[in-house]
Amino acid sequence: MAEFDIIAQYFKDLTPIHAGDIGIGDDAAVTTLPPHQQLISCMDTLIAGRHFPHDTAPHAIGWKSVAVNLSDLAAMGATAHSILLALSLPRVDHQWLAEFSRGIAACCQQFGVSLIGGDTTRSELLTISVTALGAVPHGQALLRSGAQLGDMVCVSGEIGSAAYALANLIQDQPTTLQAALDYPQPQLALGHILRDYASSAIDISDGLAQDLGHILTASALGARVELERIPCAVELEQLDMLHKWQLQLNGGDDYQLCFTLPTHHYHCLKARYPTQLYAIGEIVAERGLHLVYRQQPMAIPIQGWQHF
Amino acid sequence: MAEFDIIAQYFKDLTPIHAGDIGIGDDAAVTTLPPHQQLISCMDTLIAGRHFPHDTAPHAIGWKSVAVNLSDLAAMGATAHSILLALSLPRVDHQWLAEFSRGIAACCQQFGVSLIGGDTTRSELLTISVTALGAVPHGQALLRSGAQLGDMVCVSGEIGSAAYALANLIQDQPTTLQAALDYPQPQLALGHILRDYASSAIDISDGLAQDLGHILTASALGARVELERIPCAVELEQLDMLHKWQLQLNGGDDYQLCFTLPTHHYHCLKARYPTQLYAIGEIVAERGLHLVYRQQPMAIPIQGWQHF
Repeated sequence: MAEFDIIAQYFKDLTPIHAGDIGIGDDAAVTTLPPHQQLISCMDTLIAGRHFPHDTAPHAIGWKSVAVNLSDLAAMGATAHSILLALSLPRVDHQWLAEFSRGIAACCQQFGVSLIGGDTTRSELLTISVTALGAVPHGQALLRSGAQLGDMVCVSGEIGSAAYALANLIQDQPTTLQAALDYPQPQLALGHILRDYASSAIDISDGLAQDLGHILTASALGARVELERIPCAVELEQLDMLHKWQLQLNGGDDYQLCFTLPTHHYHCLKARYPTQLYAIGEIVAERGLHLVYRQQPMAIPIQGWQHF
Repeated sequence: MAEFDIIAQYFKDLTPIHAGDIGIGDDAAVTTLPPHQQLISCMDTLIAGRHFPHDTAPHAIGWKSVAVNLSDLAAMGATAHSILLALSLPRVDHQWLAEFSRGIAACCQQFGVSLIGGDTTRSELLTISVTALGAVPHGQALLRSGAQLGDMVCVSGEIGSAAYALANLIQDQPTTLQAALDYPQPQLALGHILRDYASSAIDISDGLAQDLGHILTASALGARVELERIPCAVELEQLDMLHKWQLQLNGGDDYQLCFTLPTHHYHCLKARYPTQLYAIGEIVAERGLHLVYRQQPMAIPIQGWQHF
């Protein structure tokens, strides 16, 4: 089967494209962004056996390939527009392609995103790279570098669920949190709102400690985080505390947002979005991440996702 | 070594970025495109052992990863702006990374392109996906679908050199045409000019026959191509004709442009760009590709690059 047949059968008309745009089928895609906006672009790769277990359902792989990229757009406060997909496949498995492409379509549809281009090729190792394109009004992108002394540190939802699910999966124990691992929800709507309130933001892909660490490094500040305030699913509440904190601080794949904002913005937003705003600490002058439990310093080894 | 260290050492400041833009170091890049332009985007993957021999010089791999994507922008008549790079590596080899990144930088610098983002991860198989972003004035992108009956069919330079070099490489015979394979030159300047003259365009990545075939299919027309008019390097002139035509029609990786334009535009352009405009045939009503040699029909098996 030729590349062009695979594209025609599974990807060409998978999602509606924006009016006036040109998607799959030429040398490149043609897209019209809204006027007075900046282009936001990112690219993430998922490799079988490394970023997801080999036997992961192809629908979930499709969803997650898109979702992790939209999550990066969300962290910038962007509106998602389109994606490009580079798919490298060991063989042409029609059932797999049908399910995978439906997973791509489901995530695109939920967030109003078009698949506009990409590349399909053969590789011994299933490898998926997605580029996501979005837009933000000029100068309003949320950066990692804007945290200010005294800002509150927040997360957008339960932390540690995906790491808990992965640990259970490795031990062959099904869990009710599997969807947190397989179907992460990019926080695009919240990211939008945060443009007007937050001083910095990042998505939690490599673990809360490491990702918050990027904000602290970029902002040249520190944070004091109260461990008992990090929200988690009931399944994690039943673990011993150290185990729970390990999953929350070092586990990746949550794709919640971590962000900072001034106290008065926090109170204003919290009333409107009670389930998406969890204050877990504050920005302090002393560099680094300072973990406390019931006001006592806690030393927890920090090691986020290692890419090599 | 962490992903972040590799990025910091080899990629973060590899190319200058456009004024006001935000490149590597946040969740996504922020780019300002010129006003009243459409975004042109494409994505191509190169895999070791498939798209280039395993022992290819890393500098050439870096160059080519960028060049093949810029070639797609050229075929749309776009101005190249930025790239994102997804690099999956079996191991951290500092000498390899230094040379590879210099190859990326060399191609970016030659065409005024910035490396603004991407992803670096570990994989058993060296895999490189690049997304290229460019811009074109609204509604002026060159498409495959615009060829008209009676248009001339042209190519922008010698065809078959890369396939000749690859065949020699496999037979361990060095050739003076190696650079055509390793360092393809995206035809961005010509693509720019063609916006005002050409009715359709494509870049020749999979072989002239297959790629011209895409124009013919998209335009619902045929072409009559005179084999003796397809330009080639002197090395190919010394081959028997059938061998030469096989390399020219079925060999890929040339990254010249193939385009169509009305006769009066051809004459106007040919005077100004004599070395970039080679008429090889004309668009005809009868669908398909009709090959002739000294006015006689020639049947040459057509099989371009097979992705699977």
